[in-house]
Amino acid sequence: MKTWIGIGASFAVAAMLGALHYAEANAVLQFVVGIIALALLAWTVGVGTETVGSRFGSATTGVLQSTLGNLPELFIVVFALRAGEIVVAQTSILGSLLANALLILGLAIIAGAFRAENGVMRFHRRLPNDTTMLLMLVVFMIAIISTSISLGDKASDNAGTISVIGAVLILCVYGAWIANYLRAGAQQEPAIDQEHAPPMSFRAGVVVLTLAGVAAAFTSEWFVAVIDPATEDLGISKAFTGLVIVAIAGNAVENVVGIQLAWKRRFDLAISVVKNSVAQIAAFLYPALVLISLLFAQRLTFGVPAGGLVLVVALVFAALAIWQITGDGEAAVYEGFALVATYAVLATVVWFE
Amino acid sequence: MKTWIGIGASFAVAAMLGALHYAEANAVLQFVVGIIALALLAWTVGVGTETVGSRFGSATTGVLQSTLGNLPELFIVVFALRAGEIVVAQTSILGSLLANALLILGLAIIAGAFRAENGVMRFHRRLPNDTTMLLMLVVFMIAIISTSISLGDKASDNAGTISVIGAVLILCVYGAWIANYLRAGAQQEPAIDQEHAPPMSFRAGVVVLTLAGVAAAFTSEWFVAVIDPATEDLGISKAFTGLVIVAIAGNAVENVVGIQLAWKRRFDLAISVVKNSVAQIAAFLYPALVLISLLFAQRLTFGVPAGGLVLVVALVFAALAIWQITGDGEAAVYEGFALVATYAVLATVVWFE
Amino acid sequence: MKTWIGIGASFAVAAMLGALHYAEANAVLQFVVGIIALALLAWTVGVGTETVGSRFGSATTGVLQSTLGNLPELFIVVFALRAGEIVVAQTSILGSLLANALLILGLAIIAGAFRAENGVMRFHRRLPNDTTMLLMLVVFMIAIISTSISLGDKASDNAGTISVIGAVLILCVYGAWIANYLRAGAQQEPAIDQEHAPPMSFRAGVVVLTLAGVAAAFTSEWFVAVIDPATEDLGISKAFTGLVIVAIAGNAVENVVGIQLAWKRRFDLAISVVKNSVAQIAAFLYPALVLISLLFAQRLTFGVPAGGLVLVVALVFAALAIWQITGDGEAAVYEGFALVATYAVLATVVWFE
Repeated sequence: MKTWIGIGASFAVAAMLGALHYAEANAVLQFVVGIIALALLAWTVGVGTETVGSRFGSATTGVLQSTLGNLPELFIVVFALRAGEIVVAQTSILGSLLANALLILGLAIIAGAFRAENGVMRFHRRLPNDTTMLLMLVVFMIAIISTSISLGDKASDNAGTISVIGAVLILCVYGAWIANYLRAGAQQEPAIDQEHAPPMSFRAGVVVLTLAGVAAAFTSEWFVAVIDPATEDLGISKAFTGLVIVAIAGNAVENVVGIQLAWKRRFDLAISVVKNSVAQIAAFLYPALVLISLLFAQRLTFGVPAGGLVLVVALVFAALAIWQITGDGEAAVYEGFALVATYAVLATVVWFE
Repeated sequence: MKTWIGIGASFAVAAMLGALHYAEANAVLQFVVGIIALALLAWTVGVGTETVGSRFGSATTGVLQSTLGNLPELFIVVFALRAGEIVVAQTSILGSLLANALLILGLAIIAGAFRAENGVMRFHRRLPNDTTMLLMLVVFMIAIISTSISLGDKASDNAGTISVIGAVLILCVYGAWIANYLRAGAQQEPAIDQEHAPPMSFRAGVVVLTLAGVAAAFTSEWFVAVIDPATEDLGISKAFTGLVIVAIAGNAVENVVGIQLAWKRRFDLAISVVKNSVAQIAAFLYPALVLISLLFAQRLTFGVPAGGLVLVVALVFAALAIWQITGDGEAAVYEGFALVATYAVLATVVWFE
Repeated sequence: MKTWIGIGASFAVAAMLGALHYAEANAVLQFVVGIIALALLAWTVGVGTETVGSRFGSATTGVLQSTLGNLPELFIVVFALRAGEIVVAQTSILGSLLANALLILGLAIIAGAFRAENGVMRFHRRLPNDTTMLLMLVVFMIAIISTSISLGDKASDNAGTISVIGAVLILCVYGAWIANYLRAGAQQEPAIDQEHAPPMSFRAGVVVLTLAGVAAAFTSEWFVAVIDPATEDLGISKAFTGLVIVAIAGNAVENVVGIQLAWKRRFDLAISVVKNSVAQIAAFLYPALVLISLLFAQRLTFGVPAGGLVLVVALVFAALAIWQITGDGEAAVYEGFALVATYAVLATVVWFE
């Protein structure tokens, strides 16, 4: 019952945004309603995926979940690219990465370590280390192309071509990894409680998923259209909007799950939800969007403009931080605090940009 | 008896510096006497702290020791800030970090591994990894603000405000860590030999500590006043003075302890003394001084001026080096050499700046 | 028999290059023949070393092998320095490092993990971690001097002096490491099959080694002379030539061994061959060449010119990648792919420079 209320609310808020959009209402109002609509639709997509996925076993569900869970994110970036909002497109991808890797992981660790018996949350080391590897690969792409651009050398004129080649290579590595992950996962016991029955029938799940996808597409378009006037009225920079507001809205609800699982002492599953999300945005969503952007006038590359080297530094440290903190399969409360503090410092810097 | 001679010597040399100061003696002479006075007072503070701390149990003593052991360092930076010597202030903090993390740790590892049975010094991995984490957090602050400054973007105009927010966040993480460390330490056996009786009574310890603190304050003020003319006469750059000379003088004696302990095969305690010192300078002294500097005209920030990016590179590699070398709980002689070589290269580069 | 045909072929191709050189044949033809000659001579040196080394036990042979195996590389750099081709000299050292650390290690891991029982190649962690340490030390030298050069500060005027001091320090660390490695190796069982009889007598081995050394010297000189006109005709940048073509030609054959060993499930030996090669180029060949270059007008330093910061970024990530992937003593197929992808991206970037 609660599930259906939530689903209804997500469609209602999305419809409200549509009404405000065509009524040409106040930009800031539309902006706020848009954030709420996106967060609720992300949750609805999550419920739909879980239902549909319950037919396939846990590892497949996990991958389905993170893939479809990134649907709203995908739409925002596609519409931002179509609207020529290249800064919002790129910063919202990088922001999702950083928000997941620092803020959400930090909160999950704080919750988990607080509830763990001797204050130390323990989990398997393989997935965190694989995520670090995939993240490092993408951060390398970003760092090398951005350095080239900031030097203004010849390679920077070909940032688009290099990004396409890099995107294909990264997708191959991701493919090899996910194939191995699914194969290994098929032999494991189900990650998700079997007792926890799906909240609706398979058929209803497919319908909800389809409708939520369509609604997410429209909502993203309306939201992107209002970013420019709203951020101007609010006096917030576009980088802050992409890196913090859109990033948190697009991932918030799905990530609450990670923190809840940590609180319930299901440490491995919590880490798996958060880390899979990071791995997927870095090594699937970003390269896929680089290839998709070939259809648009505005091309998305792995290169950050010279003024954005701060972001490259932040990404390098985020990759090192999650490696250092989760690589040993143990995390204490203060390590969670350190991740959250890193994110807060970054948000502060971007606020002033 | 030997202790009292040492304490007497430290006050005598400090008094001699005072005499030279008011006699307006040769700057280079004052500079050299100042370095000796600071090193001796650092040792006296150490003796006083050990005595006073013997009332409280080992973990508390350890923290007291590193906190008060950084007293001379603190005074130098405060007086340098008051005198407007911002380069000396900042480089002497960063220099203390680098000298501890590279030179002192390297020497302790060489001593320890040389004396270990099969040439490998072994110790618990938790503390080194926590220190790496705290150091990385501060290096992230420094790197992101320094990048922003070297790009000259909008955030760089707010380096002061961002540093204050960052300082508060880092102090919170440090607080969470030290609370956990003290709690865990309370259950452990004493770190320091019980047989090793304190060299004086509790009351005498308090008096020595107070007098040494006052003497350190005066000495620091006199020393800072003479840095400018002395380095000019000697032809040494201010960066080298701060990074190497002041850094070693302010930490030398307390760190000899770390190397001695390694030689005596007390590997965990040796690592604890050196690592606690690094963690404290990075995550307590530096942010505390950023907040204290709000009282002065010259503000201390986490931002290194554009020309000092070399220091940021050195800090990043120092953090990676101590992580890589001590993170596995084992260190061989050549790893100690590598740390010392890194410090020597850095000192050479700074010498030519 | 097959061995003697290979040795004959290597001298024949080297002689052919000589003939083409004095006939002033087409530059591109000479360039291609030169690459083949260098690769074959590298293999002949390998055979000779193995024979000579079979007198000394396995650890000594390993070190002899990697030292003499880098002979062609050494000659190319020396002749490039004499010819004033400083870009080719430096990029071919850095290229050898990157090709070994990323491409060859990646291929060895793919081969090994594919053949391992559960898809994970396992090996001892000590050597990979030591290699990471030595590589980090050299990358630190390169990064700090290159940063100084790109800032154009005072230290950059002394890049030569700083490089010489750094080279001596790195050679000391390498010496301490190799002494320890040989001592530990002397107690281990032989790394190379005892049944695998050397392909010729000791005396023949010495003759082959001497002749191959002389041939490598001549071939290198002829090859370096033709780089300029050939790359101009082919439209390839000098950086790509040094970083990719010369680097692979100079190391190809000796590295095929590493990949073959991984395929034969001799995981520790495979890792040892590849990693020793990386360690040796970084911590022995490069600093030794810096010292040797004191004899020439063109000095080799650890500083990369400002436009080459892309290489510094690549080196930092290469060091982090091999640390992250091999530091835990396990590697899966997709981790091998990630290393190869990193190398491919780098080669693409350099192609466009």
